[in-house]
Amino acid sequence: MLSLRLKKNEDRRIKSGHPWVFSNEIASIVGTPEPGMSAELLDASGAYIGCGYYNSRSLIAFRLLSRQRVDLDNVDWYEQHIRAAQILRQATYPNLRTFRAVYGESDFLPGLVVDKYGEYLSIQILSAGMERRRDLLIEALQRVYEPQGIIARNDVSVRTLEGLTENVEVLTGEIPELVEIEENGLKFLVDLVNGQKTGGFLDQKENHLLLKNIAAGREVLDCFCYAGSWAVHAGAFGADSVLGIDISARAVAQASRNADLNGLSGRVNFEECDAFDRLRSLKHEGRRFGVVVMDPPAFVKSRKNIAEATKGYLTVNRRALELLEPGGYLITCSCSHHMGRELFRDMLTQAARQAKREVRLVATCSQAADHPVLLSFPESEYLKCFVLQAV
Amino acid sequence: MLSLRLKKNEDRRIKSGHPWVFSNEIASIVGTPEPGMSAELLDASGAYIGCGYYNSRSLIAFRLLSRQRVDLDNVDWYEQHIRAAQILRQATYPNLRTFRAVYGESDFLPGLVVDKYGEYLSIQILSAGMERRRDLLIEALQRVYEPQGIIARNDVSVRTLEGLTENVEVLTGEIPELVEIEENGLKFLVDLVNGQKTGGFLDQKENHLLLKNIAAGREVLDCFCYAGSWAVHAGAFGADSVLGIDISARAVAQASRNADLNGLSGRVNFEECDAFDRLRSLKHEGRRFGVVVMDPPAFVKSRKNIAEATKGYLTVNRRALELLEPGGYLITCSCSHHMGRELFRDMLTQAARQAKREVRLVATCSQAADHPVLLSFPESEYLKCFVLQAV
Repeated sequence: MLSLRLKKNEDRRIKSGHPWVFSNEIASIVGTPEPGMSAELLDASGAYIGCGYYNSRSLIAFRLLSRQRVDLDNVDWYEQHIRAAQILRQATYPNLRTFRAVYGESDFLPGLVVDKYGEYLSIQILSAGMERRRDLLIEALQRVYEPQGIIARNDVSVRTLEGLTENVEVLTGEIPELVEIEENGLKFLVDLVNGQKTGGFLDQKENHLLLKNIAAGREVLDCFCYAGSWAVHAGAFGADSVLGIDISARAVAQASRNADLNGLSGRVNFEECDAFDRLRSLKHEGRRFGVVVMDPPAFVKSRKNIAEATKGYLTVNRRALELLEPGGYLITCSCSHHMGRELFRDMLTQAARQAKREVRLVATCSQAADHPVLLSFPESEYLKCFVLQAV
Repeated sequence: MLSLRLKKNEDRRIKSGHPWVFSNEIASIVGTPEPGMSAELLDASGAYIGCGYYNSRSLIAFRLLSRQRVDLDNVDWYEQHIRAAQILRQATYPNLRTFRAVYGESDFLPGLVVDKYGEYLSIQILSAGMERRRDLLIEALQRVYEPQGIIARNDVSVRTLEGLTENVEVLTGEIPELVEIEENGLKFLVDLVNGQKTGGFLDQKENHLLLKNIAAGREVLDCFCYAGSWAVHAGAFGADSVLGIDISARAVAQASRNADLNGLSGRVNFEECDAFDRLRSLKHEGRRFGVVVMDPPAFVKSRKNIAEATKGYLTVNRRALELLEPGGYLITCSCSHHMGRELFRDMLTQAARQAKREVRLVATCSQAADHPVLLSFPESEYLKCFVLQAV
């Protein structure tokens, strides 16, 4: 085990509950570090703070796992924490078979994401510490969930920041081509191997219910529709017609299949096109909608490109507002952590001004409860979902 | 009709959608003003901006009603806007008989609040302009809602800022001692004459559903319980026991009656006591709860007392967190506009640190959709309702 000592006054953030130490905050290291090794963390006076993973290749040099002295190479410790995370989900969602089972730092398992899709687990290993303990994680996950298969969707660029390579790998069992899951009583096929992130997005399940009272009898446009979860919900809640648009042919095919699966293929249709362009052409065609859903991928990847990304959000939201009937609704989301709630709100105020629409904010929502936010770790909060109503 | 001309560059806020002009922003007035008279608003160059109410006694000297040229002393105009507000409510809540029918500036009726409790309307007239048109408002409300009675709950100190007196008055029909309303399938008796504000609080109806999955099988503490709406919901959602506390004997009596009314009087009980003190004594008695609800009255009445009020929020939330079982939930609210979401969040982070509890934020909610927020009028946003889960 390594021993890290912090510089003077660099212990404040971690002592107030944040789980990260940056490389420039460490004064000295005792031991020979290998990526992801266990380390104890001491403050400048030598007092014990906690234990975690050390990675000299990462700017986030140390990730805290526990403030007690525990053995981070023991499978029981991981089993216990995966079980604790499971209990918290069951408390909020007693009957769900599909949910985010582990959400990294928020579950005291930094760099580990586990999404449970029915009997299958799709995981992401995002820290060298977790990578080093891969077999042990598989064992712990087997003990808690007894899945029919585990796939690692490690094809994410954030791994390079930890000096890890990108790949997709079936870790145990078998992963079928498509897995059928249920959300709010609707059925969806999820592609765990080729889909985005872990295959699907489980963070909007409660927000999809926002369509319940407003979709009925309206024409709905779903932008960046991906596999059609908003569109299918809108159809099921009684929309007159739904048009979902996405630039990916694969996504559109998947979305059409999901509409079929729920007996909605008549009213719910999809188009493969660029949302930026299509929003403009819909306006020129004189099309108007009672509900527009705007749930784009993260435009802000880092703090550096906020200004540019804000322009992107501004453009699509302005165009969406221009397409709304009087009394129509815009459900608009941002999954970029760096686009904070205030910034998002300001952008929408500006979009409304540019679109010359008076709008009311009727709901401000966040990510689902199985993606809990650790109050002391603001980085764990990312999803904004606002409902605007145009006058 | 008066004619107001703004000082140079003082038109920016109102041109960007905000409905207020402050007295120091007006360059000149043509006409002889009486409190609440109609006025047209011109920019410094003399170009028309809109029309509204002028009140020389108020810091908010002008309140915009329309950017068109309209007759603000015509009952039809009010009927039309009250009806537009009704349509927006019906779109979101198709079957509700109890809702906020008019929410001031957000419905382009500045200084008018109308809460509909079944067949009765409880209103607040908060601007001199609305006071001056009282008979016309009564007529317009009769046309749209045909209520069995209208009561004016004008016993609010904000009226003095407009030079108006405080009083309670039955304007038309009859107002029974108690009105029975329904929320989420539960029954509540509301005291329109003596209750707080317009009698009840209609802004938490969606947030009360947050208890659905988490109250079952737990012991619940409801602080500042008022008429027991959180407590009754917790009981109905299967809590083992609920203790509601409030400093008002009248509130506690009303809350007990509401528990009775829903057949919950065995499991849902109330105590008349000071929440600050009782939270401390519950801790010393070793009591622990699976859910604590913290929904206090507005501690922050103006921007000036934020620091002091934040201390109040900090104290009650710290004590609430100390009472939580592992895995227990704190549902915590602030209805102070001046306590913004970021400030509220920071306060909770500090409360958790002081209580030495690691907490996760599992939901961040706002006010109900019949209290819409006008994006260009941030003053219309006030309610925060966060769900924290203690580890």
